[in-house]
Amino acid sequence: MSAMRMNEGVEWAAHACALLALLPEGKALSAAALAEFHELPRAYMAKHMQALAKAGVVVSIKGPRGGYRLARPADAVSLWDVRVAIEGPGPDFRCQEIRRNGPCPSHDTGKPCTIAKAFWDAERAYQAQARSVAIADIVASLAAGVNPARAERFNTWLAANT
Amino acid sequence: MSAMRMNEGVEWAAHACALLALLPEGKALSAAALAEFHELPRAYMAKHMQALAKAGVVVSIKGPRGGYRLARPADAVSLWDVRVAIEGPGPDFRCQEIRRNGPCPSHDTGKPCTIAKAFWDAERAYQAQARSVAIADIVASLAAGVNPARAERFNTWLAANT
Repeated sequence: MSAMRMNEGVEWAAHACALLALLPEGKALSAAALAEFHELPRAYMAKHMQALAKAGVVVSIKGPRGGYRLARPADAVSLWDVRVAIEGPGPDFRCQEIRRNGPCPSHDTGKPCTIAKAFWDAERAYQAQARSVAIADIVASLAAGVNPARAERFNTWLAANT
Repeated sequence: MSAMRMNEGVEWAAHACALLALLPEGKALSAAALAEFHELPRAYMAKHMQALAKAGVVVSIKGPRGGYRLARPADAVSLWDVRVAIEGPGPDFRCQEIRRNGPCPSHDTGKPCTIAKAFWDAERAYQAQARSVAIADIVASLAAGVNPARAERFNTWLAANT
């Protein structure tokens, strides 16, 4: 059995976006800083940030203080957007129309096979749920656990990396 | 980007289960016959049928007229059961708790990270949808396209292969 697993980059990219949502106006964070913040491998983080940029979730700012910023407000970036950037748009289920093969092929009714329709419906249910959670929601939940000492440590790190 | 794709065996296995649902009492179909019916590669079909058997979706009958049968009524086998048999139970999203790493680790609140919770909620929505469609529904939709000539061809094939 080949278990279906989401790329771990989806988690990394979502956390990176939450971090970018906290940036002051005009500031940016490099892929290296984003990797450092969660102790992630630099090369993979760089690859995932490029995928987010290609998908239009983040923008890349050039220059010595350059790096990444969110391309739009944190409440307009959903976890579905992040997943699509890293995993591609899907669908996960690809119908090969095997019902038309063999000694007793199905009559082509023009309608999708019930199997394909059911899995695509399930994907739509998944997508609706993942669309309903935004990076702003992630930021809010992470902020709930912040105390003054952590806030200061975070601000120091941010000042040193932007 | 590494697109997330479902194993094509899920489609094959679902169609195979629909075919098994049509078997008369006491009859069975071999993996080879199931492969032939949809012009699929024998070795892969055999592998997927073994996965269905391991998951308890089908049972294997020994002997010269042996083969596979559904392990329970077709309305008690869902497309989720078939997917789990072929792809494993998931979850697709694995949380690495990277929020606890790095220079500003999150306080451990004991609650799952909002990112993990959102993706697991989405997986539950997918699962509920896929659980709501049974092999019996697939059979009913395939039967809707049957005419007398196709029914005769099918019965002839079945008689030759069981």
